[in-house]
Amino acid sequence: MSPVCYFDHANATPINPEVLEAMMPFLKQNFGNPSSLHRLGQYARQAIETARQQTARLINAPPDAIIFTASASESNNLALKGLALAYRAKGNHIILSAIEHISILEQTKSLKRLGFEFTILDVDQYGKINLRQLAQAIKPNTILVSIMHANYEIGTIQPVKEIAAICHEKNVLFHSDGTAAIGRIPVDSKEIDVDAYTFSAQSFYGPKGAAVLYLKPGTRLTPLIEGGFQERGRRPGTENVAAIVGMGKAAEICHRHLPTWIQHLNRLAQRLYHELPTRIERLVFTGHPTERLPGVVSLCVEFVEGEALLLSLDEEGIAVASGSACSARTLKASHVLLAIGIPHAIAQSSLLLTLGKDNSDDNINLLLDRLPPIVQRLRSISPLYARYLRGENPYEFKTGHTHQDKEN
Amino acid sequence: MSPVCYFDHANATPINPEVLEAMMPFLKQNFGNPSSLHRLGQYARQAIETARQQTARLINAPPDAIIFTASASESNNLALKGLALAYRAKGNHIILSAIEHISILEQTKSLKRLGFEFTILDVDQYGKINLRQLAQAIKPNTILVSIMHANYEIGTIQPVKEIAAICHEKNVLFHSDGTAAIGRIPVDSKEIDVDAYTFSAQSFYGPKGAAVLYLKPGTRLTPLIEGGFQERGRRPGTENVAAIVGMGKAAEICHRHLPTWIQHLNRLAQRLYHELPTRIERLVFTGHPTERLPGVVSLCVEFVEGEALLLSLDEEGIAVASGSACSARTLKASHVLLAIGIPHAIAQSSLLLTLGKDNSDDNINLLLDRLPPIVQRLRSISPLYARYLRGENPYEFKTGHTHQDKEN
Repeated sequence: MSPVCYFDHANATPINPEVLEAMMPFLKQNFGNPSSLHRLGQYARQAIETARQQTARLINAPPDAIIFTASASESNNLALKGLALAYRAKGNHIILSAIEHISILEQTKSLKRLGFEFTILDVDQYGKINLRQLAQAIKPNTILVSIMHANYEIGTIQPVKEIAAICHEKNVLFHSDGTAAIGRIPVDSKEIDVDAYTFSAQSFYGPKGAAVLYLKPGTRLTPLIEGGFQERGRRPGTENVAAIVGMGKAAEICHRHLPTWIQHLNRLAQRLYHELPTRIERLVFTGHPTERLPGVVSLCVEFVEGEALLLSLDEEGIAVASGSACSARTLKASHVLLAIGIPHAIAQSSLLLTLGKDNSDDNINLLLDRLPPIVQRLRSISPLYARYLRGENPYEFKTGHTHQDKEN
Repeated sequence: MSPVCYFDHANATPINPEVLEAMMPFLKQNFGNPSSLHRLGQYARQAIETARQQTARLINAPPDAIIFTASASESNNLALKGLALAYRAKGNHIILSAIEHISILEQTKSLKRLGFEFTILDVDQYGKINLRQLAQAIKPNTILVSIMHANYEIGTIQPVKEIAAICHEKNVLFHSDGTAAIGRIPVDSKEIDVDAYTFSAQSFYGPKGAAVLYLKPGTRLTPLIEGGFQERGRRPGTENVAAIVGMGKAAEICHRHLPTWIQHLNRLAQRLYHELPTRIERLVFTGHPTERLPGVVSLCVEFVEGEALLLSLDEEGIAVASGSACSARTLKASHVLLAIGIPHAIAQSSLLLTLGKDNSDDNINLLLDRLPPIVQRLRSISPLYARYLRGENPYEFKTGHTHQDKEN
């Protein structure tokens, strides 16, 4: 089942063997409920508090700022709904960017029904928001700005420290979705001075089912799930002890090794940036050229469907993504690529290579070897490519189609 | 760390070794995100669908009625908030019982703020609701009744089939929290004809982090977490694949072995019912004498604090509970025991023994051997017991104290 070569770390990372080792006793003999008062329960309680410290250290936060949840989507929902409802008396206006994850963007509908208003900030061709536009968008009734730390589909890093400063100058809360950033760049909650921050263990070789909402001490929050004292009432429900223990261990390892991982990821990504264009013509690299996540190589391979590319590479044992995992099954073009101005027909050809710490030069060699003939084969049956070869505008007849899709 | 003798299965069960074995590949090589389109991802997707079928079979439900969540508390919140919001146009009145889990009861505050009204049904001395009272409580604006299938703290089973019939006659939805019932009695969603049903893998030797909201096909639901197509948009977020696979396997095993488990649990519990009173005087067994969960032995040991009992048994390697795990840390008397009319001073002496399939006669022998001297020692320092021995009413002087505690 395992692919020879895995380039889809944005969607899932393998659990580090050391992490799994730390989890195992909690899947076996240490099965107590942390709420139980006997020693088996209290041992689990202690393990969760140790994991809270380890996880807090990764983002330089006090342990009591860490709220454990089950997924980054849950953390994003807890952040947006939880802060919106808790600060509703102060105002009802919230600012987002157009390239947020759908677990942020899709909340606007239900929050609008509760009387909230939204401003969605555009991004530039690299996917960066404009700080002046942000400052201008803040109104007297603005309570919250939610802008992701970095975007997986295009790798662009936002100026979160500057965003926080603008928000705080106007007494507005700042939440950032750090799901893509964590495990790829250092995150310092104090240096950013963020009020709430989402991330999940899956991003740094921890288990599924463990995620965090960091909440700056003193910040109010209305819980999504009610009815228990776990996570001090902010996220009740029996804790997934093994997953939380795994996240703690993964955080500790990530904190220690991140500088080495970054070097490695940057070197491998540089090889792709340099060598892919020498082997395949008409590649459109997306996202910011320098202010971007290490090891996230995002591009469009013109005249080829991204999904066909993905499936062909899969046949060769190479696992990649096309667009975000969450929109991949909708067969719509990524809202992120459209937001940075990539034409619809080109956005369909997206290829997303998210490298990991265990990728090797051999993996890169394999991709460099296998991708060009696949592209060549797919292009040979592409009517767009045929038009391009004839010197015509390959995308002209697609206009109607693009228009139709935009209405979906 | 492991106790010699574990009687706290209501709060956590050990993962069945076969279940852990089924989970392991998904904690190791099969780490793909079910949303990824490559084979590693699709393998995980397939595993989730297999688990969905296994889990559905346990409660005789169609697979697409199973919504995976991370905890029973989350399922209870998704049920109550999700149905209330989805059917708000139809009405705003909801009926609960007084002995629901706090993850049901604590939602009333936030739902009241959204304009919902509640009727909380009393229960009798055995913890059963009155069906006539239920029928009378249903008003034209009633949309939902939520009454648990069985109660862990006292073991009483509710007449859920009759409750469903009353609800449906009046065109009202019926949700039942089956967290205590599942794994102890057969649950047939079609026979009960329930509209929504909560349970978690922890109740039947599955992992933490995996739970279900069963939702009868055709029933509308407003999601708690938004932003993704997972669980068909009803509970988005990357799936905890290993935990879900574990739940499926645990469900399959439970389905096969439940009749044997029930026999075993009943036999061991009968020993406690018969032998404990011959060794310890002034025991008050709580809950219904016959319509109760197999293996749930709930009692009050007069003149002794439940927590002292718990900690003393823990010293002997015997893990038990006192009150529910979730209220245990609040040091308040259990709302369930108070609701069935147990006086406050006696409710403080609650002892909850929840037996499991792996408990043996030796475990029972150990408890029968160790409990009496512990009770004797604790009573020897109890002013209540001294008054009792002197022939006085031991609880009389506690009145002021009881009153004060009730105000907390």
